[in-house]
Amino acid sequence: MFHHQVLREFTVKVFVAMGCSTADAELAATILIDADLKGIDSHGIARLKGYVRLWEQDRILTKPEITVVHETPSTAVLDGGSGLGLVVAPKAMEIAIEKARNAGTGWVSVRNSNHYGIAGYHAMMALEHDMIGISMTNASPLVAPTFSAERLLGTNPIAVAIPALEQPPFVADFATTTVANGKLEVMKRRAAPIPEGWAQDQNGQPSTKATSIEEGGALLPLGGSRTLGSHKGYCLGSIVDIFSGVFSGANYGPWVPPFVSFLEPPSDPVGKGIGHFLGAIRVDAFRPAQEFKSHMDQWINRFRGSKTIEGESEVLIPGDPERASKAIREQEGIPLLKAVVEDLTSIAQKFKLDPLTTIK
Amino acid sequence: MFHHQVLREFTVKVFVAMGCSTADAELAATILIDADLKGIDSHGIARLKGYVRLWEQDRILTKPEITVVHETPSTAVLDGGSGLGLVVAPKAMEIAIEKARNAGTGWVSVRNSNHYGIAGYHAMMALEHDMIGISMTNASPLVAPTFSAERLLGTNPIAVAIPALEQPPFVADFATTTVANGKLEVMKRRAAPIPEGWAQDQNGQPSTKATSIEEGGALLPLGGSRTLGSHKGYCLGSIVDIFSGVFSGANYGPWVPPFVSFLEPPSDPVGKGIGHFLGAIRVDAFRPAQEFKSHMDQWINRFRGSKTIEGESEVLIPGDPERASKAIREQEGIPLLKAVVEDLTSIAQKFKLDPLTTIK
Repeated sequence: MFHHQVLREFTVKVFVAMGCSTADAELAATILIDADLKGIDSHGIARLKGYVRLWEQDRILTKPEITVVHETPSTAVLDGGSGLGLVVAPKAMEIAIEKARNAGTGWVSVRNSNHYGIAGYHAMMALEHDMIGISMTNASPLVAPTFSAERLLGTNPIAVAIPALEQPPFVADFATTTVANGKLEVMKRRAAPIPEGWAQDQNGQPSTKATSIEEGGALLPLGGSRTLGSHKGYCLGSIVDIFSGVFSGANYGPWVPPFVSFLEPPSDPVGKGIGHFLGAIRVDAFRPAQEFKSHMDQWINRFRGSKTIEGESEVLIPGDPERASKAIREQEGIPLLKAVVEDLTSIAQKFKLDPLTTIK
Repeated sequence: MFHHQVLREFTVKVFVAMGCSTADAELAATILIDADLKGIDSHGIARLKGYVRLWEQDRILTKPEITVVHETPSTAVLDGGSGLGLVVAPKAMEIAIEKARNAGTGWVSVRNSNHYGIAGYHAMMALEHDMIGISMTNASPLVAPTFSAERLLGTNPIAVAIPALEQPPFVADFATTTVANGKLEVMKRRAAPIPEGWAQDQNGQPSTKATSIEEGGALLPLGGSRTLGSHKGYCLGSIVDIFSGVFSGANYGPWVPPFVSFLEPPSDPVGKGIGHFLGAIRVDAFRPAQEFKSHMDQWINRFRGSKTIEGESEVLIPGDPERASKAIREQEGIPLLKAVVEDLTSIAQKFKLDPLTTIK
């Protein structure tokens, strides 16, 4: 177990050693460790190795020039200057929030960026302003559209954060596939088969092998099969791709430069870097904020209090599992897999940093 | 088989007989018959009986007072005055388009409305303006959130229409459940079982009975089971509900007044009527329209041309199936089920109209 502050300080030092400003390093570290606290282990400090690798390949610049290339009262396009998505996306969200203040809503599409961590972090930035936050990004092409044997889309997540009054906020944050790639990795380590509907093999046939992706197979869009609506997950992933990539002038579809180490960037890019799409909606652009938030309380209470299926303890509100994990891990620490600790030890050596200390 | 113009003229006469202006009747009829042409039979003329029933119950007013109750540069709230959703939603979309013209994007949340037909029709209104159209609505509570035995959400569809240059537009239009209720009705008529993942019984257990819903069961959110991501479909349906209902001051969740005849409206409303959410995004608020649309062509061509799974002829682009159906049905006519023809005959008698003529 590792204390979250220890992990955060270590991560700050690594980003500073890579050349980030202290402010950027602190922001990036905060977002990564927030994922670990929330139990989204696949998007936390385990990814640090990947950011270092892309920096070594000059695919991430730590002193990026971030510029607004186009704007209207409610929109903007941001060029992330090949920076860390962890730094570029919050900047885009700040612009969206500022636009929303004046125009009611603000929408920023981002090109020339990199992996931005958990989608939900950026969406939640809007909450303190009594705004709804929306965040999406395209990602490494690992997903096959319905009927396709090729990998053309990323797990392209969508996050939507909505404020309430007395209740904690509604925070949805999900990949538009049946599962994120991280879940296959967990099953692989357990040497367990995966449920049908998670992946297909290299010929597009249903697969229960946790190693399907590395062997040329693909993750499946939410729905998992045509019968259960995989074409809808394909639509969702496509919309995220188009809003993030085609709006901004980033790469899209199979051209998205991959974060995963077993894939190389395509040699014929159609845009710059990867793309994000961030939005902010002032609640009182529609209805007085108190009134809206008190109806959100009623919505949340009604759903949480509904009759459960036998054996289930409660109907969850989006955001509940992450809040529960955070409450525990802030106290008890964050567990890291042996492989992740080894990666971090090797990163410490690379940058001549002190090794991590565990909680006694 | 019935000629689409015959069905449209009949529908216009019915709406006029109900008291609609000619313009409103023609708009409403166009949207209904558009669904039949596109092969979305559940949302076409088969619904006419339902609109008549709600009008007889004074739940639909045919001379509604439609008013903007709040606005900012990029947003508005519209009160539909208990009008036909088929008339109110296009009005809201026009406002969204006008706002987008000035602010880059336009977003209109609607209360005090009724069933608005196919979501895609309204989204597609944006296309001719080189805008992306977005359309969603809440609906009769027939869907159980993950872990819940209660029906708290509608099939809450999302439609997104995106223009291309040489290619036809990308038009996604889908319920946020594994399947729409209409599919269960088809299986019921065939006396066939339904696949697992479509519905649960009144205790929340998986069900393969096509009559599950009438017997107190529920449709399932996209994903179908927790293992395959039903919590993501639950998130999506909830977001649609909140944007449509809580933004606008309409009813939401289990309080949405149902369209289906086997459910009564709740006696303790939390808002007015049902809610919609319409959006328009000017493509050139992000990027020159020609440039955006030519990249959309590239996106579409790459996906459509991708390697298919053995036995499948082509990877489809959202909108393809509806376009194919429309091309055939405009020529060959629209098939109607016997039960639907009987309903229409009885409507003709009620309003003293000539019966429908079939294609020879």
